[in-house]
Amino acid sequence: MKGTNKSSVKIIPLGGLEQIGMNITAIEYEDSIIVIDCGLAFPEDEMLGIDLVIPDVTYLKENAEKVKGLVVTHGHEDHIGAIPYVENEINMPIYATKLTMGLIENKLKEHNNLNLVKRKVVKHGQIINLGCFRIEFIRTNHSIVDSAALAIYTPEGIIIHTGDFKVDFTPVFGEAIDLPRLGELGKKGVLALMADSTNAERPGYTQSEKTVGKTFDNLFADNRDHRIIIATFASNVDRVQQIINSAYKYGRKVVVEGRSMVNIIQTATELGYINIPDNTLIEIERIKDYPDEQIVLITTGSQGENMAALSRIAANIHNKISIKPGDVVIFSSNPIPGNEKAVFKVINELEMKGAHVVFQDTHVSGHACQEELKLMYALTKPKYAIPVHGEYRHMKRHGELAVEMGVPKENVKLLSTGDVLEISEDRFEVTGKVQAQGILVDGLGVGDVGNIVLRDRQHLSQNGLLIVVVTLERESNQLLAGPDIISRGFVYVRESENLMDECREVVQDALDFCLTKGITDWGKIKNTIKDSLGEFLWKKTKRSPMILPIITEV
Amino acid sequence: MKGTNKSSVKIIPLGGLEQIGMNITAIEYEDSIIVIDCGLAFPEDEMLGIDLVIPDVTYLKENAEKVKGLVVTHGHEDHIGAIPYVENEINMPIYATKLTMGLIENKLKEHNNLNLVKRKVVKHGQIINLGCFRIEFIRTNHSIVDSAALAIYTPEGIIIHTGDFKVDFTPVFGEAIDLPRLGELGKKGVLALMADSTNAERPGYTQSEKTVGKTFDNLFADNRDHRIIIATFASNVDRVQQIINSAYKYGRKVVVEGRSMVNIIQTATELGYINIPDNTLIEIERIKDYPDEQIVLITTGSQGENMAALSRIAANIHNKISIKPGDVVIFSSNPIPGNEKAVFKVINELEMKGAHVVFQDTHVSGHACQEELKLMYALTKPKYAIPVHGEYRHMKRHGELAVEMGVPKENVKLLSTGDVLEISEDRFEVTGKVQAQGILVDGLGVGDVGNIVLRDRQHLSQNGLLIVVVTLERESNQLLAGPDIISRGFVYVRESENLMDECREVVQDALDFCLTKGITDWGKIKNTIKDSLGEFLWKKTKRSPMILPIITEV
Repeated sequence: MKGTNKSSVKIIPLGGLEQIGMNITAIEYEDSIIVIDCGLAFPEDEMLGIDLVIPDVTYLKENAEKVKGLVVTHGHEDHIGAIPYVENEINMPIYATKLTMGLIENKLKEHNNLNLVKRKVVKHGQIINLGCFRIEFIRTNHSIVDSAALAIYTPEGIIIHTGDFKVDFTPVFGEAIDLPRLGELGKKGVLALMADSTNAERPGYTQSEKTVGKTFDNLFADNRDHRIIIATFASNVDRVQQIINSAYKYGRKVVVEGRSMVNIIQTATELGYINIPDNTLIEIERIKDYPDEQIVLITTGSQGENMAALSRIAANIHNKISIKPGDVVIFSSNPIPGNEKAVFKVINELEMKGAHVVFQDTHVSGHACQEELKLMYALTKPKYAIPVHGEYRHMKRHGELAVEMGVPKENVKLLSTGDVLEISEDRFEVTGKVQAQGILVDGLGVGDVGNIVLRDRQHLSQNGLLIVVVTLERESNQLLAGPDIISRGFVYVRESENLMDECREVVQDALDFCLTKGITDWGKIKNTIKDSLGEFLWKKTKRSPMILPIITEV
Repeated sequence: MKGTNKSSVKIIPLGGLEQIGMNITAIEYEDSIIVIDCGLAFPEDEMLGIDLVIPDVTYLKENAEKVKGLVVTHGHEDHIGAIPYVENEINMPIYATKLTMGLIENKLKEHNNLNLVKRKVVKHGQIINLGCFRIEFIRTNHSIVDSAALAIYTPEGIIIHTGDFKVDFTPVFGEAIDLPRLGELGKKGVLALMADSTNAERPGYTQSEKTVGKTFDNLFADNRDHRIIIATFASNVDRVQQIINSAYKYGRKVVVEGRSMVNIIQTATELGYINIPDNTLIEIERIKDYPDEQIVLITTGSQGENMAALSRIAANIHNKISIKPGDVVIFSSNPIPGNEKAVFKVINELEMKGAHVVFQDTHVSGHACQEELKLMYALTKPKYAIPVHGEYRHMKRHGELAVEMGVPKENVKLLSTGDVLEISEDRFEVTGKVQAQGILVDGLGVGDVGNIVLRDRQHLSQNGLLIVVVTLERESNQLLAGPDIISRGFVYVRESENLMDECREVVQDALDFCLTKGITDWGKIKNTIKDSLGEFLWKKTKRSPMILPIITEV
């Protein structure tokens, strides 16, 4: 890292723009580093076979003695999902509010490293000291309870990181976002605001979570004679609470299905973030003891995820629930971009089986729209704006909005992953770049799948492969056996025997050519086979399967 | 096909619900069959490596002597794309309006079978005779000009097929949909209405195409100092016309980029469907001769298609155009479900390079919303309703709307691909099913990729493969060479040498086991290798690559 100034504050996003969802930012000053959030990204379409993407924390490892701790804004996967992996690389104490910590602990347990990590639950309003930094947790609202913004007191001034937030004056659980405190900090003077960009393209205000509760009440009233199934995000504890409230009000039993849904409701209940009246929750096995109109099923799968409960129900491969004509299925969610087709597929399948699918007015966003962002700027009056959390188009629009709110244009910066931003009263520039590529996780393998492997998977997925096996006599290089041709994912072989015969001839000719020309180097022989067979197949089929020549000698 | 009645009209969709986009329907009465449209579907996500899907016309081939002709409603890919393939299977004369025929002829030329196919251009209002059917072409509006609805006079009554339609009282080219004629037919008595379901979930009316022209004018006025790039659907000739109108009005030269865009504009111009003022169109090479503010580029790629012109421009791999800060890029389109992520990716890339991207009020749909559908029912007053064109959820909503418009519930039917619907004054039932699966096209191969090949591609795409090569001595089955292990798309081998060593040991053990147990059957030896290596790898990596044991003997 070149040109950095030893005594300025540095802000270094270690995930972000290039890996949407991988939220992790280092804040550094002299011998202190704190880390904000530690999320995972879900793989892009072209990352075939990859389960998830986690941040590369090489920079933190190289500066391990400086790293004082990890402060977490809220309990969504894109903010906590990489913690068990990263804690294996660099052991940091974790600071978070109660529910957030509960969800982090579930993750650490799954990875068997709960006992290796120091953890401290922090209350809203509380301030912790980490190295030269003091960090205050400020109450916010979001689509998961117990979210926090962070006010980071640095030697150069106060940096506010909003986390993911919205302004909900009438939240389902707890209190509204602590706007007075944000105003108070604004009065003190805020050096920089790092705020949520997700909805920066949307005008107006995000609706209160409570509006969805009213829709549920109406839907329950309108569908007294039908079984109700509601799919939503497992982590939206308030949403689940509101479904339970409506269920209780209309005399229905609640069944919860889907592993993540069951886990989160359990944790939220244990920690007091969800309140289920006695005799309301029943096991899925007891569903048959009640008439349809006394049941509401809360389930995962609102994004059309292949293996989630609702998708299995829709495809008729769920072992306990099947759709009956008359069932009312409510999607309490919007499709995340990229999931639209999968969601519509599930809706079509449900409707084909006679269900009535509802997806209007049954969801509100968890992120601030333009007017809420403006409010945040109006309260905190930051000198610098560093839009975070969103695609580039969101962050860009957010930046424009900051300028509209009076931040000078040159005081707005959109950071790329790995950028080192130096910031002080009279300095605001990117002075370096640290290693911060996403690391691919496939099964138990962390980082053992890279570009070459992905390129091969891509190639195999489009055209399959042909293996050419020949056995040559040592020294003479005369053909002893083969050429045999084995194909997978290329053509339906039984109906393409002629083609396979022709391939064998092409390989035979290639081998003859090598023998005639005195080519004995296996690498060259393989390349000759590959080239002639590849050319033949392209001409014949306009396809380019992977060709793997295998030579054995005896 | 069981239980069909020889003298009733049969309606048989040979594509449709299971393959969205593959629009093709047979109408049959005694010794006459006519075919309506002949479209292709684009592959579903899980159809790896597949280029397109065409209808299975086995039923038509089996009844070839009955097939009197193909009548085509309009020139979109999902209605004409499979014609060159299907005409190779069964030679049918084609009837279509002028522009539609022009686009069909382009396709036939590409496939070198133009001269093999009889073609007749039909005018709106004209009636043709095909076997026992008379077919009247009725003017409609849609997102491509020269669209037609079909009134099919059958011995059992009139069937109206709307094709894809909207009601545009102020179309850019030509006249509004022939509502009076539809009303006249309604007065005569319509047996069945087969109408477009695409927008059946949307309330209200679809806006006139002309509204987009006004938006263009405003955008051109607001951005006089910037280069303008507009991406839209190649086939939307009216849209292109309106861009050219605005360009001419504001003194800009027009450059067209993208193969399909160039082709369609050329055909539309030749046939008189587009009117380009002299000296307006310039070659892309001449772009450098004009200042930016005198240029508008019309391009393909509005759906974020990987290889389309706009995507290449955004990724900075287009050889003639690169984005400059200040460029205004207009998406005159909505993302088709499934394309959202790709579109947003292109938008992000454009914005990162300094372009300003506009995508509001720059598109209208080509399909009828609820009020237009109601109008269609109010005019034609059909006895039976057969919703067509759309996903199941759209067709279902359309069916409900037909009931609201007075069609008895039992007179509404949603057909699946291959259903045989028998229809007459006193009959309306599905009495059979014909073979009508989609056929996969991969490169030059038509139908040579089936489920097994796709399953292999899927497997290879997720986990890659391991090839195990062993050479055994004939008879003794002693290991002469190997085991050698070759992997592709599994792990980055150079960093996984230990794992590869362990794999070799596992295979060695499996071979020893076979030798000890006297197992000599190659099939059994291969299975033993596969099972033990598969189990080992799952335990070790939680991955299941394809394992291909190859045994050679000498």
